[in-house]
Amino acid sequence: MNPWKTLSSSQIYTNPWFSVREDRVIAPDGRPDIYHVVSAARVAVGIVPLWDDGSVTLVGQYRYPVQEYSWEIPEGGGDVDSEPLESAKRELREETGIIAETWQYLGRVHTSNCFLDEVSHLFVATNLRQGPADPSPEEILRVQRLPFQEAITMVKDGVITDAISIAAIFHLMSRMTTVAEYAPSSKLCSSEVNK
Amino acid sequence: MNPWKTLSSSQIYTNPWFSVREDRVIAPDGRPDIYHVVSAARVAVGIVPLWDDGSVTLVGQYRYPVQEYSWEIPEGGGDVDSEPLESAKRELREETGIIAETWQYLGRVHTSNCFLDEVSHLFVATNLRQGPADPSPEEILRVQRLPFQEAITMVKDGVITDAISIAAIFHLMSRMTTVAEYAPSSKLCSSEVNK
Repeated sequence: MNPWKTLSSSQIYTNPWFSVREDRVIAPDGRPDIYHVVSAARVAVGIVPLWDDGSVTLVGQYRYPVQEYSWEIPEGGGDVDSEPLESAKRELREETGIIAETWQYLGRVHTSNCFLDEVSHLFVATNLRQGPADPSPEEILRVQRLPFQEAITMVKDGVITDAISIAAIFHLMSRMTTVAEYAPSSKLCSSEVNK
Repeated sequence: MNPWKTLSSSQIYTNPWFSVREDRVIAPDGRPDIYHVVSAARVAVGIVPLWDDGSVTLVGQYRYPVQEYSWEIPEGGGDVDSEPLESAKRELREETGIIAETWQYLGRVHTSNCFLDEVSHLFVATNLRQGPADPSPEEILRVQRLPFQEAITMVKDGVITDAISIAAIFHLMSRMTTVAEYAPSSKLCSSEVNK
């Protein structure tokens, strides 16, 4: 049950990516308050493209808000109305050119639930084939394919810091006992992934 | 190197938790654009409190922005000027009453790097003792102590969806081969954690 009572809600700023609203609320302790919420305009998706040989494709780009270069799984966003799976298929194809025959849902992550309502849906894509990429003009992406174990190591070593990527890699790693389902000829097995 | 050129930056909204700015930029492809950035007013921290018996303490609260109840590691924020470690010590004590003798840095997570500049610093706290909690009045927190393996399972099963918690649990799990350093009398070992 929601212990917050919303008295009114005012949108005070909007752009194509997010809006800001101020909600007049009664807090769980009974006190009147204002809750300031950033509302994401798009539903985020993140995809681990897992090849038959157990490798994955990562994309690298400079992330302006954090002023750092970031290696990540392919990710993006879709309209609130569209199915996350459809957004995931589109983002994967645009960013990397990869088309996947098989999709499996990995879970959700709330990226910053203290003031942001954003949720990202996580997928693993398998039975992949390579087509032409079609990134947005402002996206200068690098693409690399590397063993999934190396992607795990990049998280451990602090090279991958993106929350959506970390959550998706965690979820896929935790399912690796059934890796045969995802990538039949993969050399990965549970003991290798977890060492 | 930053491939974006910032021409000017205007703060257009602010509250105690975040601000919004619009930066006039030249995008990496040479096109003029506006980059809309949410800037977090506080530096986020997340702490895994790991007891000598291998259990951890989690906190539960209703997260208003995502309209869901959320089980998480203790987390919060500190002034940009203060050391993340000091903020972590304060947040852990306020939310759970736990005081830790030993702190170790686990890494960083960028929670939503497409439009938010927020970074969270992750710690594991050990050699713990229990004191009185002192949560903020609006925080109606539940606290539970459970085996670290169960916290991992809560991520796998989609019960824990908070990005900061997932990243911290991932990092601690990946260091569990050296768990003896953290919690000498812990029953956890690498093979148990990773199964």
